[in-house]
Amino acid sequence: MSKLLPSLEEAIRTSGLKSGMRISFHHHLRNGDFVLNMVMEAIAKLGIGDLTINASSLFDCHTPLIDHIKKGVVTKLETNYISPGIGKAISGGVLPNPVIFRSHGGRASAIETGETPIDVAFIAAPTADDQGNCSGRFGKSACGSLGYAFADAMYAKKVVIITDTLASYPLKDFSISEIYADYVVKVDAIGNPQGIVSGTTMMTRDPVALRIAGLTARVIQASGLLKDGFSFQTGAGGASLALGREIQNIMVEQGIRGSFALGGTTGYLVDMLEAGCFETIMDVQCFDLKAVESLKLNPRHVEISASHYASPTAKSCVAERLDAVVLGATEIDVNFNVNVHTDSNGYIIGGSGGHSDVAAGAKLALVIAPLSRARLSIVVDQVLTVTTPGKTVDVFVSQYGVAVNPLREDLKKELIKSGIPVTDIEALRKMAEDVNGTAKKTKRGDKVIGKVLYRDGSIIDEIFQAP
Amino acid sequence: MSKLLPSLEEAIRTSGLKSGMRISFHHHLRNGDFVLNMVMEAIAKLGIGDLTINASSLFDCHTPLIDHIKKGVVTKLETNYISPGIGKAISGGVLPNPVIFRSHGGRASAIETGETPIDVAFIAAPTADDQGNCSGRFGKSACGSLGYAFADAMYAKKVVIITDTLASYPLKDFSISEIYADYVVKVDAIGNPQGIVSGTTMMTRDPVALRIAGLTARVIQASGLLKDGFSFQTGAGGASLALGREIQNIMVEQGIRGSFALGGTTGYLVDMLEAGCFETIMDVQCFDLKAVESLKLNPRHVEISASHYASPTAKSCVAERLDAVVLGATEIDVNFNVNVHTDSNGYIIGGSGGHSDVAAGAKLALVIAPLSRARLSIVVDQVLTVTTPGKTVDVFVSQYGVAVNPLREDLKKELIKSGIPVTDIEALRKMAEDVNGTAKKTKRGDKVIGKVLYRDGSIIDEIFQAP
Repeated sequence: MSKLLPSLEEAIRTSGLKSGMRISFHHHLRNGDFVLNMVMEAIAKLGIGDLTINASSLFDCHTPLIDHIKKGVVTKLETNYISPGIGKAISGGVLPNPVIFRSHGGRASAIETGETPIDVAFIAAPTADDQGNCSGRFGKSACGSLGYAFADAMYAKKVVIITDTLASYPLKDFSISEIYADYVVKVDAIGNPQGIVSGTTMMTRDPVALRIAGLTARVIQASGLLKDGFSFQTGAGGASLALGREIQNIMVEQGIRGSFALGGTTGYLVDMLEAGCFETIMDVQCFDLKAVESLKLNPRHVEISASHYASPTAKSCVAERLDAVVLGATEIDVNFNVNVHTDSNGYIIGGSGGHSDVAAGAKLALVIAPLSRARLSIVVDQVLTVTTPGKTVDVFVSQYGVAVNPLREDLKKELIKSGIPVTDIEALRKMAEDVNGTAKKTKRGDKVIGKVLYRDGSIIDEIFQAP
Repeated sequence: MSKLLPSLEEAIRTSGLKSGMRISFHHHLRNGDFVLNMVMEAIAKLGIGDLTINASSLFDCHTPLIDHIKKGVVTKLETNYISPGIGKAISGGVLPNPVIFRSHGGRASAIETGETPIDVAFIAAPTADDQGNCSGRFGKSACGSLGYAFADAMYAKKVVIITDTLASYPLKDFSISEIYADYVVKVDAIGNPQGIVSGTTMMTRDPVALRIAGLTARVIQASGLLKDGFSFQTGAGGASLALGREIQNIMVEQGIRGSFALGGTTGYLVDMLEAGCFETIMDVQCFDLKAVESLKLNPRHVEISASHYASPTAKSCVAERLDAVVLGATEIDVNFNVNVHTDSNGYIIGGSGGHSDVAAGAKLALVIAPLSRARLSIVVDQVLTVTTPGKTVDVFVSQYGVAVNPLREDLKKELIKSGIPVTDIEALRKMAEDVNGTAKKTKRGDKVIGKVLYRDGSIIDEIFQAP
């Protein structure tokens, strides 16, 4: 009666996986994930090919995937994020079909509505019992929330739970229930803890980033949202973290009791929770060990599914109740469209993740970035790839001032009244151009190698083969 | 953007409920529930009729339902349990169509597979926020687990959350997520706390019940299951509670560390948890205040859905991992078939609830009952209504000895070896007949007024109109 199978090969065989089917993976183990590579190696050995992979994100640790693509094991990819190493190969045209990009909320929705039906979901689980009750909170590869894996578990035809820490039945603190699990496989290690909770979430000392953080905090204050009941999401980049600290100081000083922080969670957000800035963290993903520990131990730190986070077809989601969200950009254009998919040369270096979801949901969506990076202008006439449409972005904050979307004249007035250096997005573009010179027109191939789906499933942009 | 509507009428109208549709209710507020009556009154006022009600259970507090049936507001009923007051009216033929009885696991399965599609689910929630994140743990009408409502919330086309305690958003300790909720209505009171956690769960002093409890404990011990890792479910009746105390004493004395207790949870089961008898309680339903408090405060006391409890179409469920379950009977026949649907006169006085689910799942399913009640034999030639098929029942324990199902000769040997008074089910029937006299053949009408669906959806028996 146990669902325990002796090996991944056995689970793949028993699942009935055939060439041409679609399989899925979640990315909570981030750049420390072993599972995707293990599964793909076993699949390749079994001679199964022409697969579609739907992975919530792909990291450079998944580079062996390129070989499986070259050999025809994988012919289609759907994902919400691709890190630069793999992005370079995809941009070079290695995949025979365009990669389908979704947002985190859009992916959950697409799985639930049947737009992307999963034949077999492979779910890395830091702890599981032999019936598949599983959790990310415990085990040597603990990753915290399993939020992105809920839709896969609930909607895939077959579900394989892969763990390195087998708990006795029943795992009482389960996140995903056995009712969805077909098979359980115990392996030596599902991931490398160093890569799971990567060291990227470090506070910055860069004066430009600190200036941007300070300005952003002032914008949020001036918006009138920073009061009791305030809700907030910010990223894991250095400037975002510095901003979090600024917001925390204001809240503590003024005794402001916020409502919730929405994670992607870092230790800095946990500090804010513990400092009483927020009543709760609603957490779809943990970025570091402190976040993992907090989710395990603090009942005010709550795991949510990707649908609960941001699905556009859920009856509601937390993203829609956000006050302020702070987002990054590799490019922003004069219409406030934001690109986090490609670099200035058109190579894939990321993806929406939750970017377009929370921009659409939040009352105040702030995009922050320096005016230039490596002598390339961040503010441009037209972004190479639209990740997040300008109509959902309220403010752009750079070290040289703040540009407000013309759709938010009300906000612009408030910022000016507060003495914030408000400027014009076109002026910032010009300033960047003056510094960096006119950007060369990016060469690109004719072949479409990626399609960017907006959270509602419509195609918002295409990505072309790099030269 | 809030889903809060000012009244039940408004929620019913907005939901698009039309005559001929199917609506659903859960029974966690038990005999203290106000919600079903409130909703039905509002529906009747709106002139909607010919409805099917799928309610996980019906209690005598729902007696106004009879009037709605008489007036044609409700023409079909599906439920897992009907208490005697309402049962009498149904048995009298008030409903134009046969009531469809399911088991708790079977109901969840039927909702999830689309066999009984719910148009509008009305979910009584002791606490909810304005987006419908809700929980049974908190609030003046706290009922603990909301296990039976999960399927309704997840699969109904429209979901109305009805609460008397509105929490600020987001309710962090939610059981059912906002992603499933369409509307939220705040009312003065969803239930009467006295009725929600009824006083029925009192230890017995009846010497017959105590003797049965003692014998049952010896049977469980002799079965070899009562060792480390033991899992257990028992009911809320006096003998079951006395048995729990016996099992607790054995476990504590012998230092046996059980795995899980499956609830329906009483304070006595909580005592066993706290005494270290079990690692966890997996809880689909709380029977008393102590259970409610424990679910709220003890992280080892975990809420599960009805599917996780016992769905036959879930990929697995906790019931299938049970060692021993102790169940009641209004009748048991010489083939070990058990009736908990009707009394000896053929009137509806109950229903399966989880009876047939856990009998099918457990390694050892014990049915306990006195040989007679009110001068009527409990052991009969043929039960009036088959709730639970004899092939899933292992042992019958009465005050005059233990009868073992012939399918379990292995177990019989063990019991005899342990000196337990093993007898024969036919001998017990004869003994009961000698005491009570030959039972009159129960008169019954020709009209089928109820169909009993086994957990897999097949019809296992029919119930006829009472004379």
